[in-house]
Amino acid sequence: MPSETQAVTTTTTTVSPPGTRTGPAAPVPAPLPARRDGPGLPAPPVDPSGVFQYGFPGPVNDLRSAASLTSAFDRAKRNPHWVAEHITPSSLLMQNGDRRHSIFEEDMSIPEKFRAKLKDYFRSGYDRGHQVPAADAKWSQQAMDSTFALSNMCPQVGDGFNRDYWAHFEDFCRRLTSFYPSVRIVTGPLYLPKRDPDGKWRVSYEVIGHPPNVAVPTHFYKVIFAEDGRTGGNVSLAAFVLPNAVIHNDKPLQEFEVPVEAVERASGLEFASLLPPARRRKLCQEVSCSIIVKEYAERQRTIMTPPPQKGSPPATTLTQR
Amino acid sequence: MPSETQAVTTTTTTVSPPGTRTGPAAPVPAPLPARRDGPGLPAPPVDPSGVFQYGFPGPVNDLRSAASLTSAFDRAKRNPHWVAEHITPSSLLMQNGDRRHSIFEEDMSIPEKFRAKLKDYFRSGYDRGHQVPAADAKWSQQAMDSTFALSNMCPQVGDGFNRDYWAHFEDFCRRLTSFYPSVRIVTGPLYLPKRDPDGKWRVSYEVIGHPPNVAVPTHFYKVIFAEDGRTGGNVSLAAFVLPNAVIHNDKPLQEFEVPVEAVERASGLEFASLLPPARRRKLCQEVSCSIIVKEYAERQRTIMTPPPQKGSPPATTLTQR
Repeated sequence: MPSETQAVTTTTTTVSPPGTRTGPAAPVPAPLPARRDGPGLPAPPVDPSGVFQYGFPGPVNDLRSAASLTSAFDRAKRNPHWVAEHITPSSLLMQNGDRRHSIFEEDMSIPEKFRAKLKDYFRSGYDRGHQVPAADAKWSQQAMDSTFALSNMCPQVGDGFNRDYWAHFEDFCRRLTSFYPSVRIVTGPLYLPKRDPDGKWRVSYEVIGHPPNVAVPTHFYKVIFAEDGRTGGNVSLAAFVLPNAVIHNDKPLQEFEVPVEAVERASGLEFASLLPPARRRKLCQEVSCSIIVKEYAERQRTIMTPPPQKGSPPATTLTQR
Repeated sequence: MPSETQAVTTTTTTVSPPGTRTGPAAPVPAPLPARRDGPGLPAPPVDPSGVFQYGFPGPVNDLRSAASLTSAFDRAKRNPHWVAEHITPSSLLMQNGDRRHSIFEEDMSIPEKFRAKLKDYFRSGYDRGHQVPAADAKWSQQAMDSTFALSNMCPQVGDGFNRDYWAHFEDFCRRLTSFYPSVRIVTGPLYLPKRDPDGKWRVSYEVIGHPPNVAVPTHFYKVIFAEDGRTGGNVSLAAFVLPNAVIHNDKPLQEFEVPVEAVERASGLEFASLLPPARRRKLCQEVSCSIIVKEYAERQRTIMTPPPQKGSPPATTLTQR
């Protein structure tokens, strides 16, 4: 019954009417042209993309554009894929927001079944770890509030990481505005493989919530774009990957530096595909990539000292040591 | 230096010129409107989405439209997210393709750093498991060939799964064309959490390749749309989730049936968001959802027998037992 079959195998890609979706509309592809099996051959008897009549399966990234951040959400892991922010010397000087007036909240723009919930974090043992830090969005209360959506959070180890080394690392990023007029930072989670005693590589991560809902990343990355302030000017790049674990403050930050490509391979994302090589500079050859734990003011003066020359570049495939 | 800063924080979202990308173009969002912090307040001092000037981070799904399948690729795990196919009584009758003439090949449309490689599978202990089976695309050699791209593969346990129970399951799907004039099947991998002895849920999966590159799914799903052949007609749905492990042939297929929503929660995808409830039917109430291992012809006659009444529906959050 080919005629009957044809009738239901249309390539029509219908989008849902307004109001039926809570998240952004799925990126339904344009109808695909009818395919022929080769010159002079009959049209194929089937239409695989006709399934789009029932909706585009996705994945959908739930792109969010807020005052303080732009992000894409991972519906399978209920964490962001990445969260991008922008800080400048003047934005950090503005002190209109206070985190005591902000509250953590679920991101209602994400469909319920893919959303991270406040109850997932409750008694999980993990912090609701900001990807874009609240302290980077003090320029308005609304901007700060928008960092408190759970779509800007991942489960992070609290003591020794989120409240310590990671916070010092965020401080390092802010201090970059002393040397660059415009700094962009993209932050997000990773789920890296580790070599087991049997010699096999395995990714293993906890999932919090009852039922399990939000993945606990094994690592976090930041890709930093420090801009020189000129249109089409130089961009000083650095990428860091830190384990979601206690890190002692005496561990040099530069030990966590990796090639941008290593973060790309691990995350499936691309961070600077449109940035010409001629405009790229290496951030950690221009400033000292190090955290400041104590004697903040004193060590602030040393940040411009170039670091010692590095050896061969690390491998671009990230695994857990 | 606000004016300098402004100059480099444009929201321009440039797409790459033709030829600079091997995969489909990233879905660069339209420029975001300038945001104001509220009525009468000054424009925000930062522009988080300005990072798009360096390229949209993604993720990009590498949508592939081939004669025999349409698929989306997971660049982080180097497996498909989903692969959709369409079979009909007449498409399965055509016998122009022979798998002995097809060869496994890497999908060159996916950027090298995100691509599954033939060498990743070599000596991994896993089969290159077709998501859309070669046997469903015998209607032309080219259609069959297009099922042999690694973007249609996942690492699958061979004996006892890919070569046995999973193959019987694929046969079940083909047999549906005896009762429905048009059958659509969406197949893909899952990475499900399992409860460890410490009471915590963890996702754990192997990654094959040196360096590790391709994730080994813990489970596979199929979402089946059996169409009645009328435009806007009824669609009989069923979803199954099978572990990537040896399954004995005497295990009833129906034990692997799950609500479609459970696959959606686990995968982060949506399969029938545009299909009105009034058009939905339950496939396994219309046909016997069971595999046939032996005495194929004899058991073929029994497939229309409705199965015994089922109890309460299973939970919609998938975990490993």
